[in-house]
Amino acid sequence: MVGYSFMGAAHSQAWRNAGAFFDLPLLPAMNVLSGRDTAAAGAVARRFGWGDVVGDWKELLVRDDVQLVDVCTPGDTHAEISIAALEAGKHVLCEKPLANSVAEAEAMVAAAESAAAQGVRSMVGFTYRRVPAIALARRLVQQGRLGTIRHVRAQYLQDWLADPASPLTWRLQRERAGSGALGDIGAHIVDLVQHITGLTVGSVTAATETFVTERPLPIESAGLGGRGGDEMGAVTVDDAAVFLARFAGTAHPGALGVFEATRFANGRKNAIRIEVNGSDGSLAFDFESMNELSFHDATLDAETAGFRRILVTEPQHPYVGGWWPAGHGLGYEHAFTHQVVDLMNDLAGGREPAPSFADGLQVQRVLAAVEASAGSGAWQHV
Amino acid sequence: MVGYSFMGAAHSQAWRNAGAFFDLPLLPAMNVLSGRDTAAAGAVARRFGWGDVVGDWKELLVRDDVQLVDVCTPGDTHAEISIAALEAGKHVLCEKPLANSVAEAEAMVAAAESAAAQGVRSMVGFTYRRVPAIALARRLVQQGRLGTIRHVRAQYLQDWLADPASPLTWRLQRERAGSGALGDIGAHIVDLVQHITGLTVGSVTAATETFVTERPLPIESAGLGGRGGDEMGAVTVDDAAVFLARFAGTAHPGALGVFEATRFANGRKNAIRIEVNGSDGSLAFDFESMNELSFHDATLDAETAGFRRILVTEPQHPYVGGWWPAGHGLGYEHAFTHQVVDLMNDLAGGREPAPSFADGLQVQRVLAAVEASAGSGAWQHV
Amino acid sequence: MVGYSFMGAAHSQAWRNAGAFFDLPLLPAMNVLSGRDTAAAGAVARRFGWGDVVGDWKELLVRDDVQLVDVCTPGDTHAEISIAALEAGKHVLCEKPLANSVAEAEAMVAAAESAAAQGVRSMVGFTYRRVPAIALARRLVQQGRLGTIRHVRAQYLQDWLADPASPLTWRLQRERAGSGALGDIGAHIVDLVQHITGLTVGSVTAATETFVTERPLPIESAGLGGRGGDEMGAVTVDDAAVFLARFAGTAHPGALGVFEATRFANGRKNAIRIEVNGSDGSLAFDFESMNELSFHDATLDAETAGFRRILVTEPQHPYVGGWWPAGHGLGYEHAFTHQVVDLMNDLAGGREPAPSFADGLQVQRVLAAVEASAGSGAWQHV
Amino acid sequence: MVGYSFMGAAHSQAWRNAGAFFDLPLLPAMNVLSGRDTAAAGAVARRFGWGDVVGDWKELLVRDDVQLVDVCTPGDTHAEISIAALEAGKHVLCEKPLANSVAEAEAMVAAAESAAAQGVRSMVGFTYRRVPAIALARRLVQQGRLGTIRHVRAQYLQDWLADPASPLTWRLQRERAGSGALGDIGAHIVDLVQHITGLTVGSVTAATETFVTERPLPIESAGLGGRGGDEMGAVTVDDAAVFLARFAGTAHPGALGVFEATRFANGRKNAIRIEVNGSDGSLAFDFESMNELSFHDATLDAETAGFRRILVTEPQHPYVGGWWPAGHGLGYEHAFTHQVVDLMNDLAGGREPAPSFADGLQVQRVLAAVEASAGSGAWQHV
Repeated sequence: MVGYSFMGAAHSQAWRNAGAFFDLPLLPAMNVLSGRDTAAAGAVARRFGWGDVVGDWKELLVRDDVQLVDVCTPGDTHAEISIAALEAGKHVLCEKPLANSVAEAEAMVAAAESAAAQGVRSMVGFTYRRVPAIALARRLVQQGRLGTIRHVRAQYLQDWLADPASPLTWRLQRERAGSGALGDIGAHIVDLVQHITGLTVGSVTAATETFVTERPLPIESAGLGGRGGDEMGAVTVDDAAVFLARFAGTAHPGALGVFEATRFANGRKNAIRIEVNGSDGSLAFDFESMNELSFHDATLDAETAGFRRILVTEPQHPYVGGWWPAGHGLGYEHAFTHQVVDLMNDLAGGREPAPSFADGLQVQRVLAAVEASAGSGAWQHV
Repeated sequence: MVGYSFMGAAHSQAWRNAGAFFDLPLLPAMNVLSGRDTAAAGAVARRFGWGDVVGDWKELLVRDDVQLVDVCTPGDTHAEISIAALEAGKHVLCEKPLANSVAEAEAMVAAAESAAAQGVRSMVGFTYRRVPAIALARRLVQQGRLGTIRHVRAQYLQDWLADPASPLTWRLQRERAGSGALGDIGAHIVDLVQHITGLTVGSVTAATETFVTERPLPIESAGLGGRGGDEMGAVTVDDAAVFLARFAGTAHPGALGVFEATRFANGRKNAIRIEVNGSDGSLAFDFESMNELSFHDATLDAETAGFRRILVTEPQHPYVGGWWPAGHGLGYEHAFTHQVVDLMNDLAGGREPAPSFADGLQVQRVLAAVEASAGSGAWQHV
Repeated sequence: MVGYSFMGAAHSQAWRNAGAFFDLPLLPAMNVLSGRDTAAAGAVARRFGWGDVVGDWKELLVRDDVQLVDVCTPGDTHAEISIAALEAGKHVLCEKPLANSVAEAEAMVAAAESAAAQGVRSMVGFTYRRVPAIALARRLVQQGRLGTIRHVRAQYLQDWLADPASPLTWRLQRERAGSGALGDIGAHIVDLVQHITGLTVGSVTAATETFVTERPLPIESAGLGGRGGDEMGAVTVDDAAVFLARFAGTAHPGALGVFEATRFANGRKNAIRIEVNGSDGSLAFDFESMNELSFHDATLDAETAGFRRILVTEPQHPYVGGWWPAGHGLGYEHAFTHQVVDLMNDLAGGREPAPSFADGLQVQRVLAAVEASAGSGAWQHV
Repeated sequence: MVGYSFMGAAHSQAWRNAGAFFDLPLLPAMNVLSGRDTAAAGAVARRFGWGDVVGDWKELLVRDDVQLVDVCTPGDTHAEISIAALEAGKHVLCEKPLANSVAEAEAMVAAAESAAAQGVRSMVGFTYRRVPAIALARRLVQQGRLGTIRHVRAQYLQDWLADPASPLTWRLQRERAGSGALGDIGAHIVDLVQHITGLTVGSVTAATETFVTERPLPIESAGLGGRGGDEMGAVTVDDAAVFLARFAGTAHPGALGVFEATRFANGRKNAIRIEVNGSDGSLAFDFESMNELSFHDATLDAETAGFRRILVTEPQHPYVGGWWPAGHGLGYEHAFTHQVVDLMNDLAGGREPAPSFADGLQVQRVLAAVEASAGSGAWQHV
């Protein structure tokens, strides 16, 4: 694994625990952690049980005990590391967004396709797909229980930047992060909407905004909760992005999408809210109640119809059977565990994992179209 | 109508408006309002359109333009007025609780039965039965959608006495109100549970409590929001009552009831919360969201089962067809309008209205059993 | 009053009841109802207590007992009736949308301004402003409790057209209704957002859609719930409209608006959902729980901060003091009563009522900009 | 650790992961798992990383590499194993309920007290105390933010026995489980109420019920989801228990408790619902939304007061700082991790862990009083 910060911890926890709750055809061995700051990486390695630590990720490529490289670094290094790993014959799991630009992402897809021809697999980490309620939402759409889709509204609302004193981390710098709320959290709702509904965003009209254009530079390389000093630096990414979408294809004619991603929605901590209205029913989800899915079956009699709060903790629900009895909810980290489970099953089964790098590229193209539209003021095709 | 305070206003509004929204076989005429303070009563009469005002309710009994007497006074006068009115051949609608004692209530039932033999009808005002969501709850139970009932939990939570400076009104005096939270609001949940489920409370074990035993006497005869002065008076009724119940009959063997009525539940303003669990489904209601009913159909597949939030505003729902389009909710007062509608239909149809005085007596007996059990510490048969 | 259908009933109920619960400086007298179908109008008049019925609204203009004309007809007649009434020296309350075109609305504003110089007043019926929770939301923004506004998201979701068999009423015909969801319900959220936040929509980018382009013609002139026959007719208005907005002015720089109006959101009956995020706090409202307002005070300590569910039924809340004790919620119709109360107070006080025709025109211009943008694909200034 | 089923898995997961997220003064080593069926225990050991497996728990007592024994077996073996372990100088963590009878629990307390004199510690596993929202609830009460407590209502609602075809597992047999819903889940709400409020149950009046008296015997020793065969066996424990409580002490005079534990509440999967009303505020919690706590501060102005939904995922909240950023919720298993964290800190710090065996005995006495009262029909002192 490359990287050892927030995503590094989440991934480590998943690698550690997947085999304890699921019957895996391949048991992951946590052999090497790579991190430029080897002291810090070593501390993480000891906590999570990585066997070895190296300072240069390139060492992973030449080690025999590394069969899969898990890329948990900031977005500006995804392309270089992933392509090199694939070329070295290592499977790759790469965090989202796939890359900081469409060009980089295209190069990664090309590398992934070449590698696939050799049986070397790749996957991009749109982890929220593995939240049981999201997987159930997709299943209900696939079963046709929503009928023709008319509306999608998706919001990813956080508030950790609402305070102007919050420091300028790498996530607020275009050269490191690619974009702001758009790429960090907007990418998730684009992927989730497409994953749940089967729709593909075809064109967008958008606006982006940076509400706070200068922030204190962090005193030291701190995490999300770090403090800033007296010196100020420029925020070079968006604080929020909103866009309307039309979808490609003819399966759901005229369907309208409304998207919003922001880190300035005071009081909303990690509210991924997705609502889908179809001719036969509707779905609603909010990650702040991640073990619930609301489902309205419009084919029932009007006397008792209504949105059902499905507690997605039954053995019949996706992924849930591996865990606890009904009503004993899961948390954020378990989606990462499910990602490992799916990946191990795909690798063992010789299947191409999903979401693929091509899926990641398509999301990247949507993000690029959003930025282009926000600049031009016109609708932009993806 | 006798009485012109809170209940008087609610009833007046119902008499005024029932005919505007429902096709009534008999159109009520608001002929005379009786109130000891004729000036105050006159003001109310002008607001609501009563034709005349008298100071002595006995005048109503001898007037030809009075065919129905609506008793909205405190509980200590219910028996005298209702019995006199029935004996004078006037139909009677009497606010709950039917009376301040079982003995009084029994006398009222006797009078009602005699009157019924002459076609003179009587009804007690358990108005919440006419909230559409409550009526729908009863309908679902009657349709068998809950199966065998296992559990009932009912709470009536208010907080207007949580402040010890809240003044000593007539509702806190045993000689006027009969009891405190028990009779004022506990009576409602006893009636509602029995109405919705068809169960009859058979025995109870109970505790009651008066948390604040002295309160400032009101400066003047003020309403609920009045202020108290420096002089203190003793609270002679319960502030809260809790009880467990066993039910009579064999239709739902072993069903357990848990009841709670209090005016000290800070933050709960008028939370009538009723939940029923049966072998095939469950219901939940909270008056603070009075246009909603939660219904869980346990016969559905586990994958999509869950409590449905039924917005009880469809034309298919009880009483709703008379009002607005779907989604345009009703308020507290509309249950009183529905009460008038039902009463007018029963009078025109020659049917005995429900809830009858006998129903009111039965509730009174439950309240008496609660008080007896709270005193003795033993289970008490109703 | 002109018109006697859905809005006519809501207005009649308000005229009838305002004086019973509020101390009015002017007591409305319900003298004449006008309706082309005098038999139908007569039935409504009898129900609600109108003194007289006429077939031609022009008669109202010459009657001395008419001082105010309440226009409840479809949008294509608003301009003609309102202008004539104002010119005849009658105050005018006109239902929204003010008119079916910007040009008509401009003429109405001109007439209103001329009339105002003579002390003749006019108001447009954006009634939802008078829902207590909405009025409280505005009050909190005005108190500065949200700080600088960053985000507004507003949705008006209904589902009564989700069924393709739902008939083609006048609301689906451009020549009668002007537009579809956009003007009927989108107008409300434009007005509400501007009313609550004090922001003015400056420019928009939009998409509109008609999902079902043909519907059965109604067998007879039926209401919302009427049935359709075998013959089909073309739907000539939008079924849904979505748009992004930028706001004018510099008070809240960069604030982003996201709007959505649809009659195809299965399971949402009358969900007016408005959420506002500011630098110091956030608000959220849903008309399906119309007696509640969610408020997040971001200046509180993080340990206990969170969205509060304010039950807007306290005497301290706008309009509530006239009604029932705390916790006894209001319904849809009461906002109309409050509209009458405010209007009577303004007329007696010699104040120009709000929202004025100019406010209605401004909303009309936003709607026109939405339609223009949906056609051109470009951002459109209002 | 002794036992390897549901609780065994939850505990194993906690032992594995506590050190990865929290700085522990003592790092647990998972040395030996004991299970009568060594093949099954071995499989669990491999999944979770236990170093060794033995068939007889007595072996643990003589091994030098065992310093703490974690007792996860059914209740009938708790006393024997725990006492033996304490006498052998091993710290003990024992699952709840402490024992199947008061007598056994008393013996355990005696052993714990003797052991404590030697520095050997013991703790009972009321794990729900370590849910962050519960820990926050206790903190708010301790800060005095509720004032004098008036009401406690606590429910533990499940539905896995609502189906009469659900098989007869050891949890339905008195000789194994001690009692039914009462001891299994009622014990939790007794402990939680006392833990959050600081109140001690002083006396109770109760009813218990077994709705389904015969169930199919399980085909094999299956878990909760196992299937039953054709042969039937008698259910010898309660399906549900309800009781009223008075509290000891004078800190909160007159406080009333209402408790309910059932496995027959259709649609409620693991609904631990606790509501506390005090003179200055109220709290409400439901484990089905375990990352939320509702808090009403009654000292705020009435205009904006209301129950706040605190998302208990901030770094300021108990236990949360070890995990993920705000809004990234935890699941059921994490409370077990926190239990290990607290226990390790107490062992290293030389403090007696809480809840102690004496705390467990006190809960046991409440359960015994409930059973006695259900039998006698009288209030029972604890």
